[in-house]
Amino acid sequence: MIEWTRKHLLSLEELTREEIELILDNTASFKEVLTREVKKVPALRGKTVVNLFYEPSTRTRVSFEIAAKRLSADVINIAAETSSARKGETLFDTGRNIEALKADIIVLRHSASGAAAMLSRHVNISVVNAGDGWHEHPTQALLDIFTLKEKFGRIEGLEVAIVGDIAHSRVARSNIWGLSKLKAKVIVCAPKSLIPAEIEQMGVSVVTDDIDVAIANADAINVLRMQFERDEADMFPEQLDYFKKYGITQERLEKAKKKIVVMHPGPINRGIEISSEVADGSQSVILDQVTNGIAVRMAVLFLVAQGAKKRR
Amino acid sequence: MIEWTRKHLLSLEELTREEIELILDNTASFKEVLTREVKKVPALRGKTVVNLFYEPSTRTRVSFEIAAKRLSADVINIAAETSSARKGETLFDTGRNIEALKADIIVLRHSASGAAAMLSRHVNISVVNAGDGWHEHPTQALLDIFTLKEKFGRIEGLEVAIVGDIAHSRVARSNIWGLSKLKAKVIVCAPKSLIPAEIEQMGVSVVTDDIDVAIANADAINVLRMQFERDEADMFPEQLDYFKKYGITQERLEKAKKKIVVMHPGPINRGIEISSEVADGSQSVILDQVTNGIAVRMAVLFLVAQGAKKRR
Amino acid sequence: MIEWTRKHLLSLEELTREEIELILDNTASFKEVLTREVKKVPALRGKTVVNLFYEPSTRTRVSFEIAAKRLSADVINIAAETSSARKGETLFDTGRNIEALKADIIVLRHSASGAAAMLSRHVNISVVNAGDGWHEHPTQALLDIFTLKEKFGRIEGLEVAIVGDIAHSRVARSNIWGLSKLKAKVIVCAPKSLIPAEIEQMGVSVVTDDIDVAIANADAINVLRMQFERDEADMFPEQLDYFKKYGITQERLEKAKKKIVVMHPGPINRGIEISSEVADGSQSVILDQVTNGIAVRMAVLFLVAQGAKKRR
Repeated sequence: MIEWTRKHLLSLEELTREEIELILDNTASFKEVLTREVKKVPALRGKTVVNLFYEPSTRTRVSFEIAAKRLSADVINIAAETSSARKGETLFDTGRNIEALKADIIVLRHSASGAAAMLSRHVNISVVNAGDGWHEHPTQALLDIFTLKEKFGRIEGLEVAIVGDIAHSRVARSNIWGLSKLKAKVIVCAPKSLIPAEIEQMGVSVVTDDIDVAIANADAINVLRMQFERDEADMFPEQLDYFKKYGITQERLEKAKKKIVVMHPGPINRGIEISSEVADGSQSVILDQVTNGIAVRMAVLFLVAQGAKKRR
Repeated sequence: MIEWTRKHLLSLEELTREEIELILDNTASFKEVLTREVKKVPALRGKTVVNLFYEPSTRTRVSFEIAAKRLSADVINIAAETSSARKGETLFDTGRNIEALKADIIVLRHSASGAAAMLSRHVNISVVNAGDGWHEHPTQALLDIFTLKEKFGRIEGLEVAIVGDIAHSRVARSNIWGLSKLKAKVIVCAPKSLIPAEIEQMGVSVVTDDIDVAIANADAINVLRMQFERDEADMFPEQLDYFKKYGITQERLEKAKKKIVVMHPGPINRGIEISSEVADGSQSVILDQVTNGIAVRMAVLFLVAQGAKKRR
Repeated sequence: MIEWTRKHLLSLEELTREEIELILDNTASFKEVLTREVKKVPALRGKTVVNLFYEPSTRTRVSFEIAAKRLSADVINIAAETSSARKGETLFDTGRNIEALKADIIVLRHSASGAAAMLSRHVNISVVNAGDGWHEHPTQALLDIFTLKEKFGRIEGLEVAIVGDIAHSRVARSNIWGLSKLKAKVIVCAPKSLIPAEIEQMGVSVVTDDIDVAIANADAINVLRMQFERDEADMFPEQLDYFKKYGITQERLEKAKKKIVVMHPGPINRGIEISSEVADGSQSVILDQVTNGIAVRMAVLFLVAQGAKKRR
């Protein structure tokens, strides 16, 4: 087995197959901790993890916060809309200040693609990308992949359909990089306007706007959240139309493989991209993903802290 | 002594007299912890308590947060106005996600009556009701009752006047249930429009709109907070009128029993429902209530965690 | 060496030279903790520190939060715009409630001068002033002074120029008190309209509106943040003008002493009160200040907790 040497986790694009597998192996160990009576290990005692979130996100923030606390780290939450960001401080200055506070890891959520990578070049502490614009959301893809591995015992050779707004999805992008590195077959399915031009270069096997084609032979479907929040008044017909064409329903699943699993990064829009019946049904692994998210983030925080020690 | 077997604390209506007394006994033990140099016990080490608040509340949230930390639990605060609730996720989905994060207890504040009970039916972890609409606020009533027991050595036979907007008060409702189960005599006093129709079925002894009648023979007054926040400009005459008719003043107390105690759930409106002289006077136990709130919540968190273990 | 006996830290004006030196000595000890693998000591285990912030401030709040956690205290954050303050509760009542919660230390940020001192007279627990109006910000000045002592080995005889909006700066005021008590020579430099009338009584050696006079013989410059946030549209020419007359640039520093150090309380406005070249240059100790802020606040929290024990 290889040794982990990275100080940061910025993307799945930059990781090797072996590095991804190392994270998955560590995740399995940390998942065992979650079944204990005392769900806590002292791995990061005396370390400080700063959740620096420039976009609102309860789910990912809470998942990282719980993961860090289960490693016995201290956690500081900074919601950048209430912070010095309001006074116009740059990400660069905020990051260097957090470093000067002797924090150990910055978990960054930012609306700009490349923000985590930029920050990692300007600070000497670890940076974990918790979502940067439309670019990547590596821990989400890692927990998706871990969930698949748990269900199927392997990733190689699996056929995974990613359905939804591919163009604006960092979740899709990270999944495509991770799955293709682990030799899964990736199918992306979306209305043509929501498929990015560069999709061909990313290791995707099939690109289609026909949901039935996408899931015909799939082992898993990863259903993306549709962002219809704005102008809710006008949205209803559009939502209904989307549900009709792309919504994952029990009826559609009946034409798919018996053992197909349905994933979703959450929060789900019942009746828009997925029916309640499917979301709560026996093929759904949506809540397993949430549990695995804690274990994956424990593994990532642990590994980057190890990496930082080696690179000091 | 009976054994505690409940996984949730949803209301005082559903508890037996023995269960309430068990909570009060445990509260006394935990109150002793608060007098120590190191005010902490390891009872919930490795457990995670999630404060899920859909209504703003610093006092109750902070009280639960401190209680949980003094039991060595990890605490996650979710203010639902900044959470996935904004993205339209239902309480049902949020609760199941928190369960999937392997949290152990959800402390829920919600504007809908019955929200905590509903949530408890959909998750396998403990739910503690921290206020649900106009329905109940059980830990507030428990701390009120504990404070009375501390002062008088007993609850049975005490005469307790609850004064204020009974109709819209979950504090009143929980107090009425708890006090009547413990055989106190409950008097409610309010302008007629603020007395709910169903009051007769709740075990109340006297219903009156005359404050002097209400407190004539009372051992304790529980003064409810009046909600005059909106339209402040117009409210002044109305507030003055309320203070004149129902405000608890030293003058009024002089006609009551010598040993009467005055309670208030806070935050107090000085000069509206209570005079400053009374609030800060020797008959006020308002700050004792705050201290006891920590001990009660430590007891409740501890007991529901025990109950969950038995019911696993 | 003297013994620390104060329960509160309210201002540098009230401290003796010996007390300030005692804090600086303790800061040096705690700074050593920050270099350890496990950056944590059990000094305040079982104690609760409440950050009560009536003004938004991420930097100071986070610095106190990290300091308290490194002392193993539990920390509760209350942002008063989301708290009972909204329901009109007074600082007096909020403080007494926090005391009743059996918290040990209140760290208070408030827009009113004297707020911390007022609060300290109404509660029996420790109060640390984290900035009160234009009055004082004692921990900021302490970290500034500690940083100078670290660089020069002494404070006595140093010449320190404070540049910027002196009239509205609690940072300036605390620095003037602290530095003059430790026998440094203090020069203040600002446009005449930003120099307070009472400056002559504060132990300042030179008052000038000429930046080149101010820094000609200075060992250190403390550059204050200019508050141009409002009306941003109109502000640009005014900002440019300020930068031209008072901005600290490499060109200006070349006329100063070789070993001059540049300080700033942050967050910096690049190109307004300081050039990027200087802020990031070798004479800048701005990030050292941030690190020292943690150590100073550990020392202050530790000392007031000791003081409270003696005064119980």
